[in-house]
Amino acid sequence: MAFELDKKNCLSKTDKSKKGDIDLHIRKLCDTINALPNFYTTSSCSGRTVLISVPASGRKQDSEWMLCSHDPVSIKQVNSALSTLKQEDIWFRFEPPILHVCAKTIDNAGALLNIVYSLGFKRSGIMSVGKKNVIEMMATERIDCPVVKGGKKLIDDDYLELLVNEANKKLAAGHAKIGKVTKALMQSR
Amino acid sequence: MAFELDKKNCLSKTDKSKKGDIDLHIRKLCDTINALPNFYTTSSCSGRTVLISVPASGRKQDSEWMLCSHDPVSIKQVNSALSTLKQEDIWFRFEPPILHVCAKTIDNAGALLNIVYSLGFKRSGIMSVGKKNVIEMMATERIDCPVVKGGKKLIDDDYLELLVNEANKKLAAGHAKIGKVTKALMQSR
Repeated sequence: MAFELDKKNCLSKTDKSKKGDIDLHIRKLCDTINALPNFYTTSSCSGRTVLISVPASGRKQDSEWMLCSHDPVSIKQVNSALSTLKQEDIWFRFEPPILHVCAKTIDNAGALLNIVYSLGFKRSGIMSVGKKNVIEMMATERIDCPVVKGGKKLIDDDYLELLVNEANKKLAAGHAKIGKVTKALMQSR
Repeated sequence: MAFELDKKNCLSKTDKSKKGDIDLHIRKLCDTINALPNFYTTSSCSGRTVLISVPASGRKQDSEWMLCSHDPVSIKQVNSALSTLKQEDIWFRFEPPILHVCAKTIDNAGALLNIVYSLGFKRSGIMSVGKKNVIEMMATERIDCPVVKGGKKLIDDDYLELLVNEANKKLAAGHAKIGKVTKALMQSR
């Protein structure tokens, strides 16, 4: 009963993410996975647009978010976040939907992997095996480019508008994939 | 002996990649993995800078490479590849090192995963379990941004120079990670 106890403990504890709760666009998928006896989710993100200050060290722990949105963004929002520039490097990123899911057995993990891969979560894999079998489910939509270098803005408003439009398109594509996986898993019960 | 036979067959067959052979920067790592009794590589890339024409369908199969380099690139090279523009959308990408490795058992796969994750291949996971246990090892260095839309160039030479410099820095960072994993696996024998 170790798996069942771990599941109960994990799902009852306080959300430790920066956001503090599951974002709306992925809640139904998390609930669907958690209703399956052999799986539970440990973290999730439905896709997000981020402005991130990248430190000279390159260490993720030292980076800082200037903007983080799980909803469509506007140029006004992005420009406003960029208006308080210090002497730093900032990247514009769109990150695809990502979930971490514990599976009861390695065979359960393999079966889930096959389903989600075929529905567009092409960057998925089992991250750890043994005591806990953890699957990382990730889709492929990405933008990752520098927009500020040493405090100097590198791009004009036309290019920023294009980045914003592309990010919003990729956000919708990610939501569609979340919807497909949710539907497939609901039908698998 | 099924694993040993699969390994022998895989390593003796013709390379089907576009490039036709293993690139120099990752050959030693592939040889090191293939010298271990419980593993063999099925594909590899040491990291690359790519200009890719993205079709309206968004389908990977319909995309076309205008440039693909496993070595540092120059602005001249990139501009030359961009000089024959048609009415298309082109993205500039840097893709991190990636390898696919078959493991004899799921425990072997888990053990390799722990080593490579701790040395910077943070986007790694087991992609399939059962008949074949396949690990995808991938590092984190990325650039992914639009540079041409509908045949119109979106960025100026200053920004392109920055992208090229960032790509070359990320290429070196990827090579350093390949070196670290190679050393760790040589010592594990």
